[in-house]
Amino acid sequence: MRAATIVDRRVEVREHPDPQPSHGQIRVRVRAAGLNAADLMQVEGHYPAPPGWPPDIPGMELAGEVDAVGPAATRFAVGDRIMAVVGGGGQAELAVVHEREAMPVPDQVPWEEAGGLPEVFTTAHDALFTQAALSPGEHLLVNGAAGGVGTAAVQLGVTAGARVTASVRSVERRLEVAALGGDIQVIDPGDAGAHGPYNVVLELVGAPNLPTDLAALATGGRISVIGTGGGSRAEVNLGLLMRARGRIHGSTLRARPLEAKAAAARAMEAHVLPLFAAGRLRVPVCAAVPLDDAAAAYERFAAGSKFGKVVLVAG
Amino acid sequence: MRAATIVDRRVEVREHPDPQPSHGQIRVRVRAAGLNAADLMQVEGHYPAPPGWPPDIPGMELAGEVDAVGPAATRFAVGDRIMAVVGGGGQAELAVVHEREAMPVPDQVPWEEAGGLPEVFTTAHDALFTQAALSPGEHLLVNGAAGGVGTAAVQLGVTAGARVTASVRSVERRLEVAALGGDIQVIDPGDAGAHGPYNVVLELVGAPNLPTDLAALATGGRISVIGTGGGSRAEVNLGLLMRARGRIHGSTLRARPLEAKAAAARAMEAHVLPLFAAGRLRVPVCAAVPLDDAAAAYERFAAGSKFGKVVLVAG
Repeated sequence: MRAATIVDRRVEVREHPDPQPSHGQIRVRVRAAGLNAADLMQVEGHYPAPPGWPPDIPGMELAGEVDAVGPAATRFAVGDRIMAVVGGGGQAELAVVHEREAMPVPDQVPWEEAGGLPEVFTTAHDALFTQAALSPGEHLLVNGAAGGVGTAAVQLGVTAGARVTASVRSVERRLEVAALGGDIQVIDPGDAGAHGPYNVVLELVGAPNLPTDLAALATGGRISVIGTGGGSRAEVNLGLLMRARGRIHGSTLRARPLEAKAAAARAMEAHVLPLFAAGRLRVPVCAAVPLDDAAAAYERFAAGSKFGKVVLVAG
Repeated sequence: MRAATIVDRRVEVREHPDPQPSHGQIRVRVRAAGLNAADLMQVEGHYPAPPGWPPDIPGMELAGEVDAVGPAATRFAVGDRIMAVVGGGGQAELAVVHEREAMPVPDQVPWEEAGGLPEVFTTAHDALFTQAALSPGEHLLVNGAAGGVGTAAVQLGVTAGARVTASVRSVERRLEVAALGGDIQVIDPGDAGAHGPYNVVLELVGAPNLPTDLAALATGGRISVIGTGGGSRAEVNLGLLMRARGRIHGSTLRARPLEAKAAAARAMEAHVLPLFAAGRLRVPVCAAVPLDDAAAAYERFAAGSKFGKVVLVAG
């Protein structure tokens, strides 16, 4: 099979042996696979794949048809449309994944959206609900709302009955973010302090925002840190955190063991996929690039100022 | 009535009008009332009492007999032994408190221990269990373990089946902390990093410890910040927090509204007072000082290097 391959801190497409599904696994003929910030970090040598995943093939999510079924795998049949978060190896013609980490693709979701769906929606759902327990009527701030996780979080916040404020650095992206849902307030990041207090802050930029996040936190508020592209060494005023009776979560999806990834997939099946089936959520795709042009897709991703996902698609 | 009174950033005992219990309240003839760090901050002008509490009479906890019962108060009768966390005014001959904030004093607990029990055990229980969800088999680090909240937390950790490591700065206090329970590992604060990983860190010192707390946090670990005597501006490496999939809580008891204080009192009745009744918990009292000598009690408290509580006792 052909796969995006990390060679000397760059990505090129190379031939690899076909992977074989073992106990409990399924093999997927990949139709689409999204790019994520972690892929870029891995290509640059900063974020190796966890043990058990291909070390040189990037890709933390995929969608495609089941191509072969390993021993004791019973959830899916050959030909089923599935998608999954994986620890690596998604940007290839074939990939194997444990069946408990896989989810069905709703009929309404086209391949290029499905390929960019699992990582960002699982991350956003886990951060907002499993960790931060976002509830109807609460005020959610999404910092860095134009990217993949940001556009997922904004939509999930709206569907869950939260009041959503979205901070977006790029002026050109603001109308697109505002169009994601019913009543989204889109602001400049510098104005976030003036629009609080917030019950939940989803922090996708990192350290530079923490002082404002904390100062604008409502009593009992939760800050969920999922991205640190803007820096990771934050100054935290513990007095403010105590006064707000608040908490700061940090999380990543990739390093989680099978049981945690499978639990997150079940939460997606129960709480997110029905909303896709009902047409209430979508995956904005800013570029769908053939797998053979993987290097160009990485360039587009690294250039920034995207609205939604960059996705690799198979022939 | 006589009461400790804040006059020009010092404490002296002065005469005040007797407080009257209103709807749902009880009046307590105070037998003992513990000192806490917040009292010292209030005396120094940094931490005013929340609205509705005496502004000039310190004291965040008390124990005594019910002396009068206000309209619609039905939980206690005159003469009952009760104790409570209050927003202020505890260090007096009489104090009023809502009956839902009050708890019965177990028969086995003498007055001077009861007067120093509510604030520290409610704070420690709330931080360890309600917030950090400490569970049997987990490893708990208590930073600043020789003080009031520290000695409470160490004992609660032991009774809950956690493995407890206690950091204590003062060499003289370490044997006393070790004697609090079954199998407590008492260490120098500088060695905390070497004894992890910790599932839960109860941070009673503050900012200087946060880098070590984070570096030694187990996957899924929780840091609960309750005291910042050592400083409140912490440097937090968000990358470490994300990798650990950890969280940092901050909390105070004093500013909470009636319903939250009452809920904490119910949790104490359900989970902590039975352990006092069974003789499995105690309140170390390092000094019991007559109310008339309140100024001396504050000096003792401010001198530091205490094991357990400084308590004012009534005649």
